[in-house]
Amino acid sequence: MHVLTKTSTHNRWRTLPLSSISVTGGFWGHKQAVNHQASIPHGFRKLEASGNFNNLRLAAGGGVGEYKTPVFMDSDVYKWLEAVAYDLANGPDPEIQAMADTAIDLVEAAQMDDGYLNSYYQVLKPDRRWTDLAHDHELYCAGHLFEAAVAMHRATGDERLLNVSRRFADHVAGVFGPGKRDGAPGHPEIELALVELYRETGERRYLGLATFFVDQRGTGQMGGYGRWGASYHQDHVPVRDADTVTGHAVRQLYLTAGVTDLYLETGDATLLTAMERLWHDMTAHRMHLTAGFGARFTGESFGDAYELPSDRCYCETCAAIAALMWNWRMLLVKGEMQYADLLERSLYNGFLSGVSLDGHRYFYVNPLQSRGGIERPEWYGCACCPPNVMRLIAVVGHYAATVSDDGVQLHQYLASKVDTRGATGPQASFSVETDYPWNGDVRITIDDTDGAEWELALRVPGWCPGATISVNGEAVEGQFLGGAYATVKRAWQVGDLIELHLAMAPRLTAPNPRIDAVRGSIAVERGPLVYCLEAVDQADIDLLDVSVDPGAKMTDAWQADLLDGVVTVQIPGNVAEQGEWEGVLYLPAGVPAGTPAQTTRPVTLTAVPYYAWANRGPGAMRVWIPKKD
Amino acid sequence: MHVLTKTSTHNRWRTLPLSSISVTGGFWGHKQAVNHQASIPHGFRKLEASGNFNNLRLAAGGGVGEYKTPVFMDSDVYKWLEAVAYDLANGPDPEIQAMADTAIDLVEAAQMDDGYLNSYYQVLKPDRRWTDLAHDHELYCAGHLFEAAVAMHRATGDERLLNVSRRFADHVAGVFGPGKRDGAPGHPEIELALVELYRETGERRYLGLATFFVDQRGTGQMGGYGRWGASYHQDHVPVRDADTVTGHAVRQLYLTAGVTDLYLETGDATLLTAMERLWHDMTAHRMHLTAGFGARFTGESFGDAYELPSDRCYCETCAAIAALMWNWRMLLVKGEMQYADLLERSLYNGFLSGVSLDGHRYFYVNPLQSRGGIERPEWYGCACCPPNVMRLIAVVGHYAATVSDDGVQLHQYLASKVDTRGATGPQASFSVETDYPWNGDVRITIDDTDGAEWELALRVPGWCPGATISVNGEAVEGQFLGGAYATVKRAWQVGDLIELHLAMAPRLTAPNPRIDAVRGSIAVERGPLVYCLEAVDQADIDLLDVSVDPGAKMTDAWQADLLDGVVTVQIPGNVAEQGEWEGVLYLPAGVPAGTPAQTTRPVTLTAVPYYAWANRGPGAMRVWIPKKD
Repeated sequence: MHVLTKTSTHNRWRTLPLSSISVTGGFWGHKQAVNHQASIPHGFRKLEASGNFNNLRLAAGGGVGEYKTPVFMDSDVYKWLEAVAYDLANGPDPEIQAMADTAIDLVEAAQMDDGYLNSYYQVLKPDRRWTDLAHDHELYCAGHLFEAAVAMHRATGDERLLNVSRRFADHVAGVFGPGKRDGAPGHPEIELALVELYRETGERRYLGLATFFVDQRGTGQMGGYGRWGASYHQDHVPVRDADTVTGHAVRQLYLTAGVTDLYLETGDATLLTAMERLWHDMTAHRMHLTAGFGARFTGESFGDAYELPSDRCYCETCAAIAALMWNWRMLLVKGEMQYADLLERSLYNGFLSGVSLDGHRYFYVNPLQSRGGIERPEWYGCACCPPNVMRLIAVVGHYAATVSDDGVQLHQYLASKVDTRGATGPQASFSVETDYPWNGDVRITIDDTDGAEWELALRVPGWCPGATISVNGEAVEGQFLGGAYATVKRAWQVGDLIELHLAMAPRLTAPNPRIDAVRGSIAVERGPLVYCLEAVDQADIDLLDVSVDPGAKMTDAWQADLLDGVVTVQIPGNVAEQGEWEGVLYLPAGVPAGTPAQTTRPVTLTAVPYYAWANRGPGAMRVWIPKKD
Repeated sequence: MHVLTKTSTHNRWRTLPLSSISVTGGFWGHKQAVNHQASIPHGFRKLEASGNFNNLRLAAGGGVGEYKTPVFMDSDVYKWLEAVAYDLANGPDPEIQAMADTAIDLVEAAQMDDGYLNSYYQVLKPDRRWTDLAHDHELYCAGHLFEAAVAMHRATGDERLLNVSRRFADHVAGVFGPGKRDGAPGHPEIELALVELYRETGERRYLGLATFFVDQRGTGQMGGYGRWGASYHQDHVPVRDADTVTGHAVRQLYLTAGVTDLYLETGDATLLTAMERLWHDMTAHRMHLTAGFGARFTGESFGDAYELPSDRCYCETCAAIAALMWNWRMLLVKGEMQYADLLERSLYNGFLSGVSLDGHRYFYVNPLQSRGGIERPEWYGCACCPPNVMRLIAVVGHYAATVSDDGVQLHQYLASKVDTRGATGPQASFSVETDYPWNGDVRITIDDTDGAEWELALRVPGWCPGATISVNGEAVEGQFLGGAYATVKRAWQVGDLIELHLAMAPRLTAPNPRIDAVRGSIAVERGPLVYCLEAVDQADIDLLDVSVDPGAKMTDAWQADLLDGVVTVQIPGNVAEQGEWEGVLYLPAGVPAGTPAQTTRPVTLTAVPYYAWANRGPGAMRVWIPKKD
């Protein structure tokens, strides 16, 4: 999924091994604890109850009952196993290990002698392997298997899934490639997984196969899909010629992540040029404020430029995860903060809304407005998102830091220990203490270092008006504005204390006037968090009738007993009476106001972090709040 | 479809026979000529090319090749035959009659000995009749057959389809009903058709069967449908308990039309109460300005209250037609202008956008905004809309007038001849001359009358600021405000000339502030027409950047050579530079404006009638225009 090793050569910044960063508490420590205690066991139970495990039993010749679709049920098992791998890397646990062993046994048993492994085809269409690459997800499932295997090997050294994967990958390489079969998967995923498998095994043919699949795209082999056409699965144009993110958002973003992985290993500049073009299109035209992606239910897809509805956006949880994976790879390639900023925006907003605070319920679709009636279910018939959430939370610490030859870069602020010893670059370990995202104070203590000079780069996020830094209580001179890394270079000593303070206050954000869906509205943000209004916090006020004065002063308050502890924001606003609008949708526009006047009365609105919405019943919610006329 | 006869007893106003109103020219005369010359022959060719006719041949034991789905292909043939019936009523035509005979022969030949008729089941599932009422449209297709048969009988006296229908309806009545099978159709349609068949034949068992199907709804027999649940086909609640229009919009509105038909014949007040409740919900919460219906692509369905997007609304052409059919029935029941007003709004906007000016291309979905790329195709795999358009245009004159014991009501202004002689009520004939909707001048000349006193009621539409009326050049005293019928009662004489002048100027319309999708925007209307901006009319201006000053003065101009002749509206407006918004979706909100300022320059925007959009290429279009800050 996320962890690149040192084999990459075309990157500016390098990842650290899985074991080099551990989350020690704070915001993400709590999320990982819930993930470990609640979500991962919940997933294990659901994979049994939903038939995923039984599908594998049926494929192995055992099992009872009918095969359960959809076609990609195996991938849920693999994503869950990947989550378990990262979870076990955070600390051994015999019960979780036993669950993992159960699943791994099933996977091993289901694999055929020739290496092929896909329970759907093995059980239902044994004679029709590889006959519908556009729709039937065989290569997609393979990709998730490879990712799980690499993760498990890195986390625990367990080679069982890696051996299954190598056999399957070798089988796939025997079927597809130059001089063999043409074709590309309808749902990208295997591309990045093959690159990871290459990194873990050193087998260059896996890299070649990833290149082959990327090069096959857009050659008209897939045709259209229902009403959506070939762009649904990014087959309308070769990867290098694409200039907009298009079609099914998760497919598009797994593809760009895989292509960027290919660039990291091959240095093929034509790929990187296309990726930079697509990243610009996505962020300039097709991104919700939460860094959720996919404007349309139809085709779970990106929409037109500036088509960014709040209520009926799709913003699939998996798409936020895919975007995050892509941004991580772009950050490594380019060494530019915009990618870390966007990664953070997805992480705390478009991604994190995908799971309930108790870790038992999941959003597939993440709207920015609800008129009521929306809650997270416990699982889905198409359950791609829940295990995807689990694997990201379990490995979230890994996104905190990178290294270069002479420096360490801190991108995300988590209570953690970072250890670069053994990696190429500075040899050090340090502790990070912070209550981020609730405030912008970060304390970094050098626990070990070899005395050599190296540069510590601290991300001052784009949202931040400015930062101050001190070392051992002494202010570091310079202006540290948002949108640049603040750097301190010296021969660090054990016990050195670096204190970073990021200014963090509630702020209002305006949308590009071309975004029709949220015209005349503003949003509240604070630090990395997008805020929202939930009906449950506004006594007897319909969220359809509120407005806010953009000039009014907001306040904030830590509330330990609310939503696992959050900072709320209080916003002076107004609530309008329907008046002559009661029961009427359209009226003659008055002159000069352009709309019949409404009576309003002042209220104080309370906003909570968007990620925490829908944990107190299915009431209305809105991120974008109309401005008072 | 549309034509109620005098059997109805629970109505305030009565329809006239099909032959009593003929369109003589003007706006709708031209539309009917295009429908006759282009659309109906086009439909005949498409029904052959798409396999609809061949499906019937296959069902009759002939034909070659494969059956073509979807399951409701027969209904397109029936709707087309209904259109032909109305077209033949407007004047015989041997070529059209020959096409009709071809289709009628196929229908007759396909019917089975026991009366059953559905080519899909006959060819593909002969042993599985009536096994999937929720999804498989057998009863829906039957309903369209009955409507076509009634129309043909009324139009030409041709009994062939009526005989087929009676045999099929008797068969259905033998299967379903008290003491027989339970069940209701997943797609309502047969309810109103059975009432019409009862009206035409006098067979009360058809009325009983319609009642049965309505009463069966909401009893949990259909279950859910995919991700949508039972509300998709209005099976979540009994008809009498429904309080919101819900689910698939065409299903909902065919159902309400049928239920209102049932009320017309039975006087069951519990049905009418429910219909009034649903009508209020629809018009107060879930209606686009164009009187298009259905906010969501997903399930082709109504959305939440106030969920009325411009770009991704559905507003299916068939839904506008269904709404029009329902409003006509409510008008007859209640004798209240609001229903005629809404009928007019659908007719000139949400409906009429469904067909190109040349009559060869059709919209299924009718958005109120396009960012480009949208054009009408010539036909659809699911081709419900094109023949539905044809049948409405062919019979549009019928919606012009009703009669009561002592009066004639003129609801829609069409160049036409109206003849009430022979109907119960005033005995008269008169001519209507008008260029409506281009201006509000209507001249009515009494061609024949028996000298008795009767009241002429003229609709002064809700959009109209006021009207003047004169008789034989002499002003009728009184204030004639929009939203009420202006009445003149006297013993009319042959040659009497009534002149109605409806004030008609471009006007601006504001949306309820609860409609998030169009906040801060206004729309241009003129008479019954909603206007839009098309990119092709605005030189080098991106429609994403325009705004209008609601206080500015608009002008209008007749342009004979544009879009078959239209009045355009010129609007003083502005176009903004992207400036600091270039390539950026979100920025810190300024204080106090709440949004980073943009540079604007004044422009004159040209608006055209919404129904005429997308006849000059796939450029951008918008109905709602942002107000200048």
